[in-house]
Amino acid sequence: MNVRRSNRAMIDHHCHAVVGRDLDPDEFEGMISESFAPAPLGTSHWDKPVGLAIRRWCAPVLDLPKFAEGGDYVARRLELGAAEVNRRFLKQSGITAYVVDTGNRPGLLCTYDELGAAADMPAFEVVRMEAVAEEVMRAGCDAKGYADAFEAAVEASLHDRVVGLKTIVAYRSTLRIDPTAPSRADIEAAASRWLADIEATGEVRIGDEVLERHILWFGADLARQKGLPIQFHIGLGDADVEMHACDPSHLTAYFRAVEPWGVPMTLLHCYPFHREAGMIAENFPNIYFDVGFVQNWAGPSYRNVMREALEMAPFTKQLFSTDAFGLSELFYLGAMRFKNSLDSVLDHWIELDECSPDYAEQIKTWVSGQNAERIYRLAPAAN
Amino acid sequence: MNVRRSNRAMIDHHCHAVVGRDLDPDEFEGMISESFAPAPLGTSHWDKPVGLAIRRWCAPVLDLPKFAEGGDYVARRLELGAAEVNRRFLKQSGITAYVVDTGNRPGLLCTYDELGAAADMPAFEVVRMEAVAEEVMRAGCDAKGYADAFEAAVEASLHDRVVGLKTIVAYRSTLRIDPTAPSRADIEAAASRWLADIEATGEVRIGDEVLERHILWFGADLARQKGLPIQFHIGLGDADVEMHACDPSHLTAYFRAVEPWGVPMTLLHCYPFHREAGMIAENFPNIYFDVGFVQNWAGPSYRNVMREALEMAPFTKQLFSTDAFGLSELFYLGAMRFKNSLDSVLDHWIELDECSPDYAEQIKTWVSGQNAERIYRLAPAAN
Amino acid sequence: MNVRRSNRAMIDHHCHAVVGRDLDPDEFEGMISESFAPAPLGTSHWDKPVGLAIRRWCAPVLDLPKFAEGGDYVARRLELGAAEVNRRFLKQSGITAYVVDTGNRPGLLCTYDELGAAADMPAFEVVRMEAVAEEVMRAGCDAKGYADAFEAAVEASLHDRVVGLKTIVAYRSTLRIDPTAPSRADIEAAASRWLADIEATGEVRIGDEVLERHILWFGADLARQKGLPIQFHIGLGDADVEMHACDPSHLTAYFRAVEPWGVPMTLLHCYPFHREAGMIAENFPNIYFDVGFVQNWAGPSYRNVMREALEMAPFTKQLFSTDAFGLSELFYLGAMRFKNSLDSVLDHWIELDECSPDYAEQIKTWVSGQNAERIYRLAPAAN
Repeated sequence: MNVRRSNRAMIDHHCHAVVGRDLDPDEFEGMISESFAPAPLGTSHWDKPVGLAIRRWCAPVLDLPKFAEGGDYVARRLELGAAEVNRRFLKQSGITAYVVDTGNRPGLLCTYDELGAAADMPAFEVVRMEAVAEEVMRAGCDAKGYADAFEAAVEASLHDRVVGLKTIVAYRSTLRIDPTAPSRADIEAAASRWLADIEATGEVRIGDEVLERHILWFGADLARQKGLPIQFHIGLGDADVEMHACDPSHLTAYFRAVEPWGVPMTLLHCYPFHREAGMIAENFPNIYFDVGFVQNWAGPSYRNVMREALEMAPFTKQLFSTDAFGLSELFYLGAMRFKNSLDSVLDHWIELDECSPDYAEQIKTWVSGQNAERIYRLAPAAN
Repeated sequence: MNVRRSNRAMIDHHCHAVVGRDLDPDEFEGMISESFAPAPLGTSHWDKPVGLAIRRWCAPVLDLPKFAEGGDYVARRLELGAAEVNRRFLKQSGITAYVVDTGNRPGLLCTYDELGAAADMPAFEVVRMEAVAEEVMRAGCDAKGYADAFEAAVEASLHDRVVGLKTIVAYRSTLRIDPTAPSRADIEAAASRWLADIEATGEVRIGDEVLERHILWFGADLARQKGLPIQFHIGLGDADVEMHACDPSHLTAYFRAVEPWGVPMTLLHCYPFHREAGMIAENFPNIYFDVGFVQNWAGPSYRNVMREALEMAPFTKQLFSTDAFGLSELFYLGAMRFKNSLDSVLDHWIELDECSPDYAEQIKTWVSGQNAERIYRLAPAAN
Repeated sequence: MNVRRSNRAMIDHHCHAVVGRDLDPDEFEGMISESFAPAPLGTSHWDKPVGLAIRRWCAPVLDLPKFAEGGDYVARRLELGAAEVNRRFLKQSGITAYVVDTGNRPGLLCTYDELGAAADMPAFEVVRMEAVAEEVMRAGCDAKGYADAFEAAVEASLHDRVVGLKTIVAYRSTLRIDPTAPSRADIEAAASRWLADIEATGEVRIGDEVLERHILWFGADLARQKGLPIQFHIGLGDADVEMHACDPSHLTAYFRAVEPWGVPMTLLHCYPFHREAGMIAENFPNIYFDVGFVQNWAGPSYRNVMREALEMAPFTKQLFSTDAFGLSELFYLGAMRFKNSLDSVLDHWIELDECSPDYAEQIKTWVSGQNAERIYRLAPAAN
């Protein structure tokens, strides 16, 4: 599993794939909204920080003037075609490897290897355990057989391009959960409740706290055996989130319980709890974090968040991610924001004589990719 | 309901009226404190950011040198008389319309139309539903009749200058409440408990969670019928607040439940949860927010909060408020702080080439007044 | 109890003593980690903001070039010997009095008066009530006698250099506790549970919520009688912390209940809840706070936290602390960070014409020491 080396590896350790087909204006607007609803009457989804950032920074990549209007932007995008648009943004992002969560609306997006091919860079997969559980139920399974079937399905999903597991417990049962492992009998009872819920609603959506605890404990044990990290959705990044319950410190007792296993656990996005995440990364040797997503969505103010993220945590514990979803713009913009914000914070440190230029380069090397290479075991080609 | 147009509408969508009579030094100090207690021995309420800001920025409006001492300031205020003082600050605030919460200590403050007359600008009323409930109880009401009496009283309060409803559930039962609507029987039982409490304490103060849930659900339904927004106290701004329980994300399930009704819901002040508020405004099409109050109270550091408020939320979702209470200084100062902080953040964006000057003007137009005009249905005179 | 006056008193109102003996490289690394675990494979505890700050600012005090390597730093430290190292950092810190929490790993650290002797400045003691309770249990005590024995032991600890009490309820039962005083019967039952726990584990560690409530209420009552403040651990600063439950606003009902007693209560470190702490300091006349610890640990980004700490709170309510533990570097660095961050925020206010130079000096005098002198009753020698 070799990662091509640029001058400095940029490992996007948490992202989704892109939409391979063309997007009409409404579809494009929908993808720059966390809500599934249209913008209120008299307003547009373009009129937010991320919309402004796309008009400023992505328009020129499509040969438009900076600050092109949203309508013109989508028209030009259609003119060039999705393949060319995606190729341009991915190429120019500077990202050297993609670690892709494949469990969110896979039908809408291309596959992780199609993403890698479009970027001409290696791509890896992260298995979203909740998606596996839902697949198991869709395939047909009784309550008694659920635990074994789920565990077997997760194990079966671990082909040689899989470099991690992921859980979205944050926006299913929230992080305010019993930190202990459930018994097999508890899981069976919970699976039985879930089957009744599927029967009643026709929708297959995992949410029961017991089943999420099973995911956390089985996942950690499997990760330990296989040498994989586990990713945790934290803070913002989904309209289903009940924010106060997505503070990663709700998982403290769980983290303490599994700490001896030494499984790297990565806290994703974290905003507005990135300070908490940084402290947890200091307190636990196996915890890592990033401030992805918000670097795209915070528009011109993205630098603040990076500055706060660098307040407390060890430099060997922070990671880079875009959390791009659907739009290749978000890889380009997210990588640019990440590089600029890290540069601007460290340049300020150098200016204050608080950091040497050499050490600033070392910090960039760690956070941009080396930390991810170490914990995801992505051997750099040149090493 | 026409709003006079200045170059740009400045709609103070959440404020209280001013004290019409003169204030002695102790009374003045009391009004720049969130506590009802005097300052500790050897200290003064002047020695905090808002006190410093009044000495710096308000003293010159009363013909005193900047940084005049607090004692001199109050003496000059008395010399000029409250009417002249209020006239000066309101005139110079640049505010073009006042949306006034009339439910907090109305005996102390002038009426909303007296405020409008002093400012020579239109003023509108927001009905604080908890104040109506307490009035209903004071007027005499049995447990069985409470729900109907309350609902009738709120409806009866909706004269043609009322442009919104408000709830202070945040510092009564807190926002950590059951998100569902209570039954009539539950309301009756709660009203019965409240009557017993009034009997026992002699004080009429609503606080029961069931009665607050009734306010939330009846209020949303009435607002839907009448085309009114509902305001929610969030975060700081009252000594009764238990801060962690005033995080607006505690209302997520309620917001989700009433989202289909399309009632504009405005989150007031929000600090220190303004980042959470911005994300909720992104996630829900009907949610709006402001960072009022803190712009006055944060003194010289007020710009930080605005910068954070502009990180995530759509520009069509943020509103302007002073949350001024009692002192006309707080309209002048709050409006100045708002304008300066918005200008300074957007000027910085322009300097970074992250925003065009024209679009910055558009953002100012939205946040200063146009967003409020749209959701409170305040038709601008010139349109 | 006289405090020697420098030009301006710098009262470190919350700190621990230093290690008197030499530290080898692993021990030194262990003391710049909040975790008790070694750094993950391939990383070092030096590679975090506080490590960088020590290499930058402390190395020159030991005659090394700035940004000396960690290995060279510890070697030079050993060469000079702990006594000389401690003398240098304490002398050059500018701290004029030390208020020392003596309850955390006393065997590892020197005593508070040894610290004062090394610094040639007065030192005072704060009694950590949880340590007293554990001592009482270690000495042997039955459940029935526990409450009286604990209370007698705390009273007996109040020699004439004791200037305050402290509780670490935050990282024992957390701050999410019943705010009322427990009955004697409840305490006896809890002591009985504790004895069983000691029997079972062989470890004497207080943690029961009832016993913590006893500490809070007995402590406040004793403090009231003796004219002492009580310190509360808040927010970060211990690997045991479950962060969301260390928000000081969880204590709101308790603060309200004991407010009439007028006991000064100081909220320690507070990050990431320093905004909440500032608001509570505004709402309650007897509440004070500091942003210690993080000034050391936030490395080059320490100024941000001070800026936020100065947003809301009265200037007469903020205190200075280093929360230094073990390493004399942390007194030097913490005092330097504190002075620089306060200076830089206030200089910026002056530059913006938001504060007069004289008043900025007054604010520095209050926060650096005068507020602490007042509430800890440390009479300045020159007064």
